[in-house]
Amino acid sequence: MTDAYTPRPEHKFSFGLWTVGNRGRDPFGDVVRPPLPPNDAVAMLAEVGAWGVNLHDNDLVPIDASPAERDRIVREFKSACERNHIVVPMATVNLFYDPVFRDGAFTSNNPSVRAYAVQKTLRAMDLGAELGAKIFVLWGGREGTETDACRRADEAVKRLREAVNCLCQYSIDRKYGFRFALEAKPNEPRGDIYMATTGNYLGVIPTLQYPDMVGVNPEVAHEQMAGLNFVHAVAQAWEAGKLFHIDLNDQVSGRYDQDFRFGSANPKAAFFLVKFLEDVGYDGPRHFDAHAYRTEDYEGVKDFARGCMRTYLILRDKAARWNADKEIQALVRESGSNASLPARDALLAQNFDRAALAAKGLAYERLDQLTMEVLLGVR
Amino acid sequence: MTDAYTPRPEHKFSFGLWTVGNRGRDPFGDVVRPPLPPNDAVAMLAEVGAWGVNLHDNDLVPIDASPAERDRIVREFKSACERNHIVVPMATVNLFYDPVFRDGAFTSNNPSVRAYAVQKTLRAMDLGAELGAKIFVLWGGREGTETDACRRADEAVKRLREAVNCLCQYSIDRKYGFRFALEAKPNEPRGDIYMATTGNYLGVIPTLQYPDMVGVNPEVAHEQMAGLNFVHAVAQAWEAGKLFHIDLNDQVSGRYDQDFRFGSANPKAAFFLVKFLEDVGYDGPRHFDAHAYRTEDYEGVKDFARGCMRTYLILRDKAARWNADKEIQALVRESGSNASLPARDALLAQNFDRAALAAKGLAYERLDQLTMEVLLGVR
Amino acid sequence: MTDAYTPRPEHKFSFGLWTVGNRGRDPFGDVVRPPLPPNDAVAMLAEVGAWGVNLHDNDLVPIDASPAERDRIVREFKSACERNHIVVPMATVNLFYDPVFRDGAFTSNNPSVRAYAVQKTLRAMDLGAELGAKIFVLWGGREGTETDACRRADEAVKRLREAVNCLCQYSIDRKYGFRFALEAKPNEPRGDIYMATTGNYLGVIPTLQYPDMVGVNPEVAHEQMAGLNFVHAVAQAWEAGKLFHIDLNDQVSGRYDQDFRFGSANPKAAFFLVKFLEDVGYDGPRHFDAHAYRTEDYEGVKDFARGCMRTYLILRDKAARWNADKEIQALVRESGSNASLPARDALLAQNFDRAALAAKGLAYERLDQLTMEVLLGVR
Amino acid sequence: MTDAYTPRPEHKFSFGLWTVGNRGRDPFGDVVRPPLPPNDAVAMLAEVGAWGVNLHDNDLVPIDASPAERDRIVREFKSACERNHIVVPMATVNLFYDPVFRDGAFTSNNPSVRAYAVQKTLRAMDLGAELGAKIFVLWGGREGTETDACRRADEAVKRLREAVNCLCQYSIDRKYGFRFALEAKPNEPRGDIYMATTGNYLGVIPTLQYPDMVGVNPEVAHEQMAGLNFVHAVAQAWEAGKLFHIDLNDQVSGRYDQDFRFGSANPKAAFFLVKFLEDVGYDGPRHFDAHAYRTEDYEGVKDFARGCMRTYLILRDKAARWNADKEIQALVRESGSNASLPARDALLAQNFDRAALAAKGLAYERLDQLTMEVLLGVR
Repeated sequence: MTDAYTPRPEHKFSFGLWTVGNRGRDPFGDVVRPPLPPNDAVAMLAEVGAWGVNLHDNDLVPIDASPAERDRIVREFKSACERNHIVVPMATVNLFYDPVFRDGAFTSNNPSVRAYAVQKTLRAMDLGAELGAKIFVLWGGREGTETDACRRADEAVKRLREAVNCLCQYSIDRKYGFRFALEAKPNEPRGDIYMATTGNYLGVIPTLQYPDMVGVNPEVAHEQMAGLNFVHAVAQAWEAGKLFHIDLNDQVSGRYDQDFRFGSANPKAAFFLVKFLEDVGYDGPRHFDAHAYRTEDYEGVKDFARGCMRTYLILRDKAARWNADKEIQALVRESGSNASLPARDALLAQNFDRAALAAKGLAYERLDQLTMEVLLGVR
Repeated sequence: MTDAYTPRPEHKFSFGLWTVGNRGRDPFGDVVRPPLPPNDAVAMLAEVGAWGVNLHDNDLVPIDASPAERDRIVREFKSACERNHIVVPMATVNLFYDPVFRDGAFTSNNPSVRAYAVQKTLRAMDLGAELGAKIFVLWGGREGTETDACRRADEAVKRLREAVNCLCQYSIDRKYGFRFALEAKPNEPRGDIYMATTGNYLGVIPTLQYPDMVGVNPEVAHEQMAGLNFVHAVAQAWEAGKLFHIDLNDQVSGRYDQDFRFGSANPKAAFFLVKFLEDVGYDGPRHFDAHAYRTEDYEGVKDFARGCMRTYLILRDKAARWNADKEIQALVRESGSNASLPARDALLAQNFDRAALAAKGLAYERLDQLTMEVLLGVR
Repeated sequence: MTDAYTPRPEHKFSFGLWTVGNRGRDPFGDVVRPPLPPNDAVAMLAEVGAWGVNLHDNDLVPIDASPAERDRIVREFKSACERNHIVVPMATVNLFYDPVFRDGAFTSNNPSVRAYAVQKTLRAMDLGAELGAKIFVLWGGREGTETDACRRADEAVKRLREAVNCLCQYSIDRKYGFRFALEAKPNEPRGDIYMATTGNYLGVIPTLQYPDMVGVNPEVAHEQMAGLNFVHAVAQAWEAGKLFHIDLNDQVSGRYDQDFRFGSANPKAAFFLVKFLEDVGYDGPRHFDAHAYRTEDYEGVKDFARGCMRTYLILRDKAARWNADKEIQALVRESGSNASLPARDALLAQNFDRAALAAKGLAYERLDQLTMEVLLGVR
Repeated sequence: MTDAYTPRPEHKFSFGLWTVGNRGRDPFGDVVRPPLPPNDAVAMLAEVGAWGVNLHDNDLVPIDASPAERDRIVREFKSACERNHIVVPMATVNLFYDPVFRDGAFTSNNPSVRAYAVQKTLRAMDLGAELGAKIFVLWGGREGTETDACRRADEAVKRLREAVNCLCQYSIDRKYGFRFALEAKPNEPRGDIYMATTGNYLGVIPTLQYPDMVGVNPEVAHEQMAGLNFVHAVAQAWEAGKLFHIDLNDQVSGRYDQDFRFGSANPKAAFFLVKFLEDVGYDGPRHFDAHAYRTEDYEGVKDFARGCMRTYLILRDKAARWNADKEIQALVRESGSNASLPARDALLAQNFDRAALAAKGLAYERLDQLTMEVLLGVR
């Protein structure tokens, strides 16, 4: 049964292998679902209506696979993708699961670990390129500290820069055409992760050797963990031409990383996000980096995946309704305009009636209430 | 009575007029202290041993002062500073107190408010320059939203950029020689403030017309409100050459802006901060942007101010002790080194013994415990 | 124009004088709205459709009013209430605004302050009784610390108990018939407020002299500031027979006290709250302890007040829809039942098929997605 | 080498088997340490100077062990404890690791899961009694929700009560003499856990069948996750006679459960806690519910365990110093006293000089600075 909220390929909805394949292990409990082989995950994604699948190197190829195993696995996975009309828009590298990364990867104190992390990433780039990915995400989950006694934090920035410069050069030399999308997170699994927010990455990118090749991959949950307004971060990245990818999910602030179904924790924030992406014409993947509750079996995982996409489309529809609402538009218009500043001399000479400017009510309570009523479907 | 922790001018300790002059008003209560006239504040700062005083335009000159009044006030204030051997290293502008800024200043929807905000800032720059300040701080306390319905967040970035470009041009044209230091804050007094973290400002600076003139003014409390690691943010700014100023205070995470006495909420984080500033040779002002508890009279305000400086010097002493501790230094050294990555072909050809690399315990528990014992004064 | 979401007296919607009368002062800015005299506030509440008004003693009667002034003010206020068909269901006392309470009221270290706080409360009880209130709320906004050096925290509990016991005795002796509702808050305006959560008050009540007279007044924002699930706290209070009053508003977690329009920050949490109150048949006041954005004039304040009530009624309607949704009800039913435990010997003898019990998916993703679709008005 | 901070049996320091045996698995990474057999853990605890060991049933006995295996394991464990002079003061039950508890244990929607959870707990009580434990801790890690659609939260309270009543009856009938200590946590591994704070449990205890047998087990990290002041919660529990056990560790607010070494995140809060426990004469176990960083091998685990105890003893020493500091004691004394309220008629008749009472500075900045200087070891 299809309706207005049925996903279609042009919506560019993608999921990571690790999302629908998440087995529900958490710090206090064991796995609750059997393994989902990658090729079965692709079939499931096709079944629920997704367009793309993303992966870390080891989501597909075990870390100790021989070259021959690796090649067989990749061949069969490409075949599964083709058979199911699923593309691989993005690839990434796992630099956090193996104990070798217990103190970081690119920023580890151990030069051999740093070198191994770069080598592993270069090979993950080979894999991603072979699968057709054009976006390469870097999430430095272990780059951080529990105690700042272990290294000076500016050293970590230098090490990170050296590694990313090397990756860019490799993409150029191999003609992979990757755009790198850096993903920030404030903490977990480290006490504090370096590059805590999307803003921190926007700050480091201009200091890289190939800044044009590098942008960001903001994740809803990662900004919201720190209680930050996600759409503000996305808007800054977009305005700077750096929104190369996006990770959609949901999260209650001030907690462990929850990776909830998109829109399920804070639908109002999700509404403003969808509205922003649609209004500015973002045309990259809508990637859901989330997973089903631990209460679910694989039927529940499908419910989860369908819900992510369905909620996105519901909110997209509401954004269009909001844009078309005459009363709402009038309120925004009346609150001001985008006029540029006057020339400086004119500006300096101007007399402002401060009291009159201050007296004007802005009707934002009314504007927000109308927004809520659009969101709640009663307008 | 002086001891090893007595402040001296070379420590460059400064306070804002608004800090020692804070009257203890809060959202639920009235003022608890009488006004402290600016010239008396300068005398108090000299009495407790500070080196500098900073100010918003309206901390000194009432917003509606006539030019003649303004000139008299400035003249007398300069005289008070000279008499007390207090310098004015930094000036800033108040774009948040007056109701005209109820929806922001540089990013207000109302073009007249934006123009007025820029005009007010230019005049604050005149004032700062006249007082000898070389650093101009911008904190956009009202630049934000309670509802994102009111404007698209990328518009706010554009408006902010236009304003800062205008300020830089003015400093150049008037030969003021200002370096602008942008101060981030995640929320309060707005629901969400644009440019929530120091990282966001590091991201926007390279997009300005005069990026070299603009850096950041990180504030302990503002990063810690969002639960972020402050020294990581400061280190990134320092590494980028952008640490133009710093605001020292303290704060418990996930709360209202507390502006506590430096080091009084989280002494371990304060220790790593002081250690970083001293280790890298930061030579700008150590500015305390804090205020006394509301339980205090002006004797208590002096206790507060003395405590800020004293704790800084205690922690500086501990940092030196940490650097000289042979066991601590050995632990850091054994955890790795700063060697560069091997050349790429060599790196790709290398065989890493992942299990061996992973097996090595890093002794960070021991390192951190020794750090705690230095901090607690038992080592 | 009325519709299904128009407030009526039987909804028992009430507002504090301090809510619609809030002038928009905050820690960084001045008032933005002129004073709203209490009698005008009553007329405004009638205009927007409220049923009741609540007040602190000094919202109505200035702290230094003479007995004659006090009597005139009360007389005129009662008349305004009658004229506007507005009742006074709840009264409370302001123990936080005046500098005398700078270190607390009932828990202050100063015995004279403690005595004055109790005296002031007894008189506020006289006032509340005269206005017909049957609920007396106690919010100890200044009962707390910035440094725990100032007193042992168990002393604060003893002092609080002594004060509340005295108030109960007074209500009995004067035959006021008050039920006391204790309101928790974790912090702001103090660094830490004693009795941080509704749970803490539920713990202290059984240790009072008249436990049956005392319950709680949970406030959405106060639990959510600490990131706690509000409906869980309300449910525990209800189950214990202690939900004597409730304060409705909204709040983003981990921030300053925002007191936003009900349902405007977290509509999903608001939905579960309204559903709980309606499902269990809570018949006390629905009190909105919130205020309009600082961007608003008094037209905006009315929008704010109307929005609070309207959103409550929208959510109440959705709760009824959720209860009537066959698919939703089936999912809940299939997840289990309320059966009691078996008798102990039978229980000890039972063999459980752990693997079979563990294998069952619970379809909570589906259940939650359907809930979201009810909430978003597409189901 | 021993010094003033060397642990001795009379300090009653205990660790859980799961703490020193923690293998470093986290949501993003695999185990980093080999298994530590329980009997080896006991030897390690003896080596580092601990007094006691605590355990969940399945820390010692695998969930599927046969009765014969179980008896052998217990026998050998008792022997290991005796050999190493280690006692078992507390036992608890694991109701969170197995997938059967995916939706809770005592509060699960499935009556069979609830029954199994109670049966498992009764058997864990048998085990604890056999090992000599007199305290039985209950932490309901899975009792909670990701969506409140799944059950009404007051049902969860009723189910919890029924289970705890059954446990108490069993302890009475078997003459085990257990005192039950209920441990709260706000979230993780569930989105929201019922009974979020120690206060909530203090509220539910008086509604139980055997309230005198039931108290609380507050954990530093669990209150601090929600940004709450831990010593305030402990003090309320103590004052109510309900501090049956305590879990010591450390945690940065607003984050995933970190279980850091005691005192290592927030030494000032740890100081006030130790001071409170020592001042009131708490004589129960000082249990460390924490684990070593994932960067550590088992030498690092010993460093971690030694650090917990050493920091406790350092802080205990500082508390004594604080109590003996004449200037500090004078400041506290001058701020007020513990006098009772005047009789009510006298109180009502009294005239208070509000302005005079309000004018008094309380010197808490000075008091707190002196406290910091004791803490930092410079006083």
